[in-house]
Amino acid sequence: MQTYFTPGPAQLYPTFEKHLKTFVDRQLGSVSHRSQVYRELHAFTVSQLRSLLSVPDTHAILFLGSASEVWERILLSMVEKESFHLVNGSFSQKFYQYALAAGKKATKMEKAPGNGFDFDEITVPEEAELICTTHNETSCGVQMTETEIHRLKEAHPDKMIAVDMVSSAPYPALDYSLVDTAFFSVQKAFGLPAGLGVWIVGKQCLEKAILLKERKGLSIGAHHDLPTLWKNALNNETPATPNVMLIYLLGKIAADMNDKGVDTIRKETEKKAGLLYGFARANDAFSPFVLSEHHRSRTVAVLDTQLPAAEIIARLKERNLVIGSGYGDKKATQVRIANFPATDVAQIEALVSELAKI
Amino acid sequence: MQTYFTPGPAQLYPTFEKHLKTFVDRQLGSVSHRSQVYRELHAFTVSQLRSLLSVPDTHAILFLGSASEVWERILLSMVEKESFHLVNGSFSQKFYQYALAAGKKATKMEKAPGNGFDFDEITVPEEAELICTTHNETSCGVQMTETEIHRLKEAHPDKMIAVDMVSSAPYPALDYSLVDTAFFSVQKAFGLPAGLGVWIVGKQCLEKAILLKERKGLSIGAHHDLPTLWKNALNNETPATPNVMLIYLLGKIAADMNDKGVDTIRKETEKKAGLLYGFARANDAFSPFVLSEHHRSRTVAVLDTQLPAAEIIARLKERNLVIGSGYGDKKATQVRIANFPATDVAQIEALVSELAKI
Repeated sequence: MQTYFTPGPAQLYPTFEKHLKTFVDRQLGSVSHRSQVYRELHAFTVSQLRSLLSVPDTHAILFLGSASEVWERILLSMVEKESFHLVNGSFSQKFYQYALAAGKKATKMEKAPGNGFDFDEITVPEEAELICTTHNETSCGVQMTETEIHRLKEAHPDKMIAVDMVSSAPYPALDYSLVDTAFFSVQKAFGLPAGLGVWIVGKQCLEKAILLKERKGLSIGAHHDLPTLWKNALNNETPATPNVMLIYLLGKIAADMNDKGVDTIRKETEKKAGLLYGFARANDAFSPFVLSEHHRSRTVAVLDTQLPAAEIIARLKERNLVIGSGYGDKKATQVRIANFPATDVAQIEALVSELAKI
Repeated sequence: MQTYFTPGPAQLYPTFEKHLKTFVDRQLGSVSHRSQVYRELHAFTVSQLRSLLSVPDTHAILFLGSASEVWERILLSMVEKESFHLVNGSFSQKFYQYALAAGKKATKMEKAPGNGFDFDEITVPEEAELICTTHNETSCGVQMTETEIHRLKEAHPDKMIAVDMVSSAPYPALDYSLVDTAFFSVQKAFGLPAGLGVWIVGKQCLEKAILLKERKGLSIGAHHDLPTLWKNALNNETPATPNVMLIYLLGKIAADMNDKGVDTIRKETEKKAGLLYGFARANDAFSPFVLSEHHRSRTVAVLDTQLPAAEIIARLKERNLVIGSGYGDKKATQVRIANFPATDVAQIEALVSELAKI
């Protein structure tokens, strides 16, 4: 068996197989998505996520096909004309490109990958309706802290703010009185196979979508439009047949995380990140790509390497440890190491010990 | 264990558990969607589906979140102004409503549920660019035969034609030289959990999408737009992280179906449909809802009931046989019985035998 430290798809959560077996044994793959059995399953997952991520009742928790789909639905539902994007990597850039493809005027503040954003350097264009932030840039391991995100919203209460936490939830402790919408994928820190995006979205976003559709006459999309998703969610259902298996498994793993305690998970994440970055600082063959400690991702560590990344990856693989290569043009000179809850302190220690031998 | 004759989610295919175990044992839930392992898995599924459904190389086979998502992508990619819909049930009506929500002019020819369409009664509006047909209306058990669909395209070679085969594929033997695009979901006749839509789409559809985007300046969507999906598919990849688990399982089940032979599957489907409808005609307490034999669905049998449907469903459930209720306002007076490949002749005989005792 290999241990995956790849930034998603990633190591599956230790209880994944147990819950999958229950799903199969209970024949939940065959139950109707309009049945009470399904509605209870759906409600359980929503309530576990609410508890884990401290999501208040002002916000709905919706299930879509992927976080990329959520990008599009946010832009269609919440932007009449203009969105503003903080771009410092491939995924924040894609969110920006989605805005252009959706026919919006999109503007951006851009930094080279590896550089993070802080509140006091950001000038938001006056006409922007939505500020798009990325808590964790998976491509280059940069984070924007919750504090900086919250300050940005406090300074612009008239604008909406979206938080991409695809590869960090449940780590960031967002304050949803200061976050209009946020989203993540399950194949990252929740340790599940890919195929489900989770969209956390406030009532104010729904109101904007209704305004755009009914008063402004805009198309806000036909599939998974926010008003239809919201209406179905009130009944613990989805408009189309959902991914019942992943919604079930997500609920069970969120419950396991709640049993452990989100504070414990966050502290362990920080401890493991400390081990990874501490090793990279101390070892001549590696160095953290992100120079500012404050901007270094706690969930995806990106390290510059002296040796070719492919060689390091191959040597670890002989020890059944799988890490990721750098993203895009950094493929040969960086490694990416996921630090998700599915791998514990001992596993990160074992990885660091093998890295040290290289 | 219960046997599900519900029209989707439905009984899982007999080999589902075996293939799921292999997926877990091989840790395929953790592999990168940009790796050779994934590309080979993806290529295998596409090749098995190509073989099973006789899809030529002129058409791509793409993976989306659901068939409902495919509705939207077809309308955005293939329609500049106007689509035409044959509507005789809830799902064909939803396809029509998606067209309106996507900002298109949509027209329809409508029949009451239970009534089917034939080629020679259909007048397609001159301005319509796309004709939307439904091979199998899951809500009321009506089919439009392949022959009638093919004749419609032959009479309108200048227009594109789309075929909804959500709850019938692999049963219909479509001729893709006469079908521009078709689509289905995996939780119906492929006997898988829900969460994956399959879009079969011809080169001419891609060309139309490029025309709409580049020459006409229309938004064809930001997420899963056809040119991006197509480009990635050439490399056996997807633009966003896909549902690797269901793509893997679909390939394995399509391979099992190929081993059995699609002709055998189609003949068994017809034999089982004959048993269900033969029983309903002979028994005073039931009657086929669709009067015209030619329009009766081979994969979802809808029967009018003398007794309240809920009572019939409850009595069968005591015998571990699960059938569906009527759709929408027919909930109390109809039952729906899926006739998918996951249940064999003996299981349909056992169901009919229990129905006869009621």
